[in-house]
Amino acid sequence: MVDALERLIALEDIRAVKARYFRCVDSQDWDGFAAQFAADAVFDISDDLPDTVVHGAANIADKARTSLIGCQSVHHGHCPEIELLSPTTARAIWAMEDMLRWADSSAPIRELHGYGHYHETYEKIAGRWVIKTLKLTRMRVDTVPR
Amino acid sequence: MVDALERLIALEDIRAVKARYFRCVDSQDWDGFAAQFAADAVFDISDDLPDTVVHGAANIADKARTSLIGCQSVHHGHCPEIELLSPTTARAIWAMEDMLRWADSSAPIRELHGYGHYHETYEKIAGRWVIKTLKLTRMRVDTVPR
Amino acid sequence: MVDALERLIALEDIRAVKARYFRCVDSQDWDGFAAQFAADAVFDISDDLPDTVVHGAANIADKARTSLIGCQSVHHGHCPEIELLSPTTARAIWAMEDMLRWADSSAPIRELHGYGHYHETYEKIAGRWVIKTLKLTRMRVDTVPR
Repeated sequence: MVDALERLIALEDIRAVKARYFRCVDSQDWDGFAAQFAADAVFDISDDLPDTVVHGAANIADKARTSLIGCQSVHHGHCPEIELLSPTTARAIWAMEDMLRWADSSAPIRELHGYGHYHETYEKIAGRWVIKTLKLTRMRVDTVPR
Repeated sequence: MVDALERLIALEDIRAVKARYFRCVDSQDWDGFAAQFAADAVFDISDDLPDTVVHGAANIADKARTSLIGCQSVHHGHCPEIELLSPTTARAIWAMEDMLRWADSSAPIRELHGYGHYHETYEKIAGRWVIKTLKLTRMRVDTVPR
Repeated sequence: MVDALERLIALEDIRAVKARYFRCVDSQDWDGFAAQFAADAVFDISDDLPDTVVHGAANIADKARTSLIGCQSVHHGHCPEIELLSPTTARAIWAMEDMLRWADSSAPIRELHGYGHYHETYEKIAGRWVIKTLKLTRMRVDTVPR
């Protein structure tokens, strides 16, 4: 099992993974974004985009990249509930809010302002915590049409 | 007194209490919400609703439930200042933001968007941290009338 | 070097510095705000106000005070990436959002709603962590003219 100090270190390190996830997506640092996921990670945003479940870190970063072309995005995470399941596995729920704006006049919507939760699992691989699975659920999404 | 490791564990566990508080209120999980409070907790939201100071976990959950009928609520907490006072008592200030929307046409207002701080005390009872007292103060509240 | 427990304590204490920073600026507690900075701190908000780089805790608090006269401000911080560099030095990136509103009809703008990141260094001086340097970068700023 995990002793108290190991658990605290894991919680800090998992929070840092998600902090990099948010900074990388909003600065469109796609290599940095991909590095927060396990090679075989699963990214389920089917609550936003029907049937959209992406497999693999490289595909996940590519999906985020193409979804956010021409978009200034702001993603914020709040108040995680992180539970360590073993020395190398954990799960977490993060509250989230995103504010997306597309300047490009060919984009179908002008703005999206959403609220929801990430339901995630994490795995420690080669000494580094990464996101293994992510499912986004939504409480509310407001959009401004073009 | 409390040693360094015990203090760190308490801070993590108190953050998790408040994270569950937020998730439970926004998912209207009233049993989960009530479980974050001491049986004799005091919930002072008189800055929002004059004279509203509710006593007892069950009454607090019931007050939240009836206040949010027909409402899609989003509550976020930020940047807590948590101070451990003893092995079983603590106090905290949390910045907060709430975005409430009532679909029901009989609700007196359509939306509320507020900003403020929770001033709280916590107690560890039977090995579990819970909220003992909560007072919400407001910096700004914007409402959209129906 | 820093052992695991010392690192965890430092992360908690640095988060508390920034939590006080936010509470103090929004409650216009300028002595409390100044106390979060090193005496020779550097505060670079040139992304918001051209050429504005303020030196010294007292000058920083005075700049914030005069910038926010007649303003109800709300500043929130999210998902810090904190890296301890030595027992007494650290750096951090914080996501941030601010919502400013000037009631005073002589203010040039009515509202500002911004999103960005604080890029900071911290130093432990006389046993207490304080902000040594702060640079604010912006992703998006919306203003409502008067």
